[in-house]
Amino acid sequence: MLQVWALPGIGEISPGDDLVSVIADAAASTRPEEQLRDGDILIVTSKIVSKAEGRIILADDREDAITAETVRLVASRTSPTGHVTRIVESRLGIVAAAAGVDASNTPAGTVLLLPEDPDASARALAGGLRHRLGVAVGVIVSDTLGRAWREGQTDSAIGAAGVHVFEDLRGGTDAEGRPLIVTMPCVADELASAGDLVKGKAARLPVAVVRGRDDLVGPLDLPGARSIVRPAERDMFSLGSDEAWAAGFAAGAASRGQDDADAFSSGP
Amino acid sequence: MLQVWALPGIGEISPGDDLVSVIADAAASTRPEEQLRDGDILIVTSKIVSKAEGRIILADDREDAITAETVRLVASRTSPTGHVTRIVESRLGIVAAAAGVDASNTPAGTVLLLPEDPDASARALAGGLRHRLGVAVGVIVSDTLGRAWREGQTDSAIGAAGVHVFEDLRGGTDAEGRPLIVTMPCVADELASAGDLVKGKAARLPVAVVRGRDDLVGPLDLPGARSIVRPAERDMFSLGSDEAWAAGFAAGAASRGQDDADAFSSGP
Repeated sequence: MLQVWALPGIGEISPGDDLVSVIADAAASTRPEEQLRDGDILIVTSKIVSKAEGRIILADDREDAITAETVRLVASRTSPTGHVTRIVESRLGIVAAAAGVDASNTPAGTVLLLPEDPDASARALAGGLRHRLGVAVGVIVSDTLGRAWREGQTDSAIGAAGVHVFEDLRGGTDAEGRPLIVTMPCVADELASAGDLVKGKAARLPVAVVRGRDDLVGPLDLPGARSIVRPAERDMFSLGSDEAWAAGFAAGAASRGQDDADAFSSGP
Repeated sequence: MLQVWALPGIGEISPGDDLVSVIADAAASTRPEEQLRDGDILIVTSKIVSKAEGRIILADDREDAITAETVRLVASRTSPTGHVTRIVESRLGIVAAAAGVDASNTPAGTVLLLPEDPDASARALAGGLRHRLGVAVGVIVSDTLGRAWREGQTDSAIGAAGVHVFEDLRGGTDAEGRPLIVTMPCVADELASAGDLVKGKAARLPVAVVRGRDDLVGPLDLPGARSIVRPAERDMFSLGSDEAWAAGFAAGAASRGQDDADAFSSGP
């Protein structure tokens, strides 16, 4: 039985707030059966991590902030109303709209950047909570991400500590004894999605607890959510279709010019 | 509190098996508190739906089957070992490796196709279970899908009935009162992911129950999982980067040829 619930009583988070204390206090005020235990996994919305870390800037700088957070433009599209959507690879390697810069649920006139290093944030939270509460919990820092090919968003893991991000079945066999060669469920993303089902976007419920997958919890130095990011060079969708087409077109035109030049120089 | 558990006691499924009876019997044999109730959502692995529907073919025909299930090649890549991965848009609109044709956990020498119409399968299951048990349940048919940009797979919804597939917050406001204009969580995919956390790939636990999101359960004629599929013409990643580049290159070379022809015909 997997149980997932949201921690109540987490108020507005401000720069400098100690999230370990905030979460530990919220968890302590719940019913006895909801006190944190070994093997529990906390799903923490990146927004409160960013706020605690002071990753807040004036909204006037939003476009500049997106540019600053961007390593590479992956795709962009202008809507009929003139709104430009930029899908970019952020400095975290994550491919996301607007580099994860968030304007919802922030003080008026401001926007939030993603945490500087969400795996480090998760490690600090998991380590702090383990130390303070004496229980071995895992921590996932989650963000709401759009996808290729499918409408809507799902919550995914952008930071993780003390929890296996993949359930590695590659060495296992199926019920018929055949090797499960390509299956590697991203349990960190699945945990983040399960957490979103109890957190809600509009309410102030930024932390969920998942109980029942103790087997996924381990040492703090397990690989973090950075390991979920597929390097662009291994990605078949590293560039938007229109952008790749345009780059190919330019190369085609140039190479044709080159062919002509070659043909000309070698004579008819 | 969200609760997620797997139904025990579902054995091997064969063509012609009545899944409504199989699932109803499995659910009836659980503990009293796990008897199905109004608002429960069943996450049913597409594999058992395919098996019950007889969507099983000889493995020799696998490549032909993938081709037959394919509407459009999205991307392909050959590994250093010569293995070709084909990402395709299937006749269901879903973008998936090998069109969802599955060779794991099938009888030796056979592969499984996805259900003919997973939304219709979900509707038949939800309707049958509602009729037989007298409880208003929702049904999601799930499949394991890879993603762009992120390693590993997550379980997603390829069929749905009696359950809202999106939690539409577009008309809502955040805690600061600002409109949540672009957020539309795909709760069906999040539910499928939560189900995967208890089902496991290697065990024979193909059905999960999610309890605690009664608000998402509704009439059987709600839009199905087909509505999650983003039409290719609205998708910035409708074609693999290499494939789009190659198409652009060809067009560039041809247009350059045209330019040359134009230039030649109009004289220097």
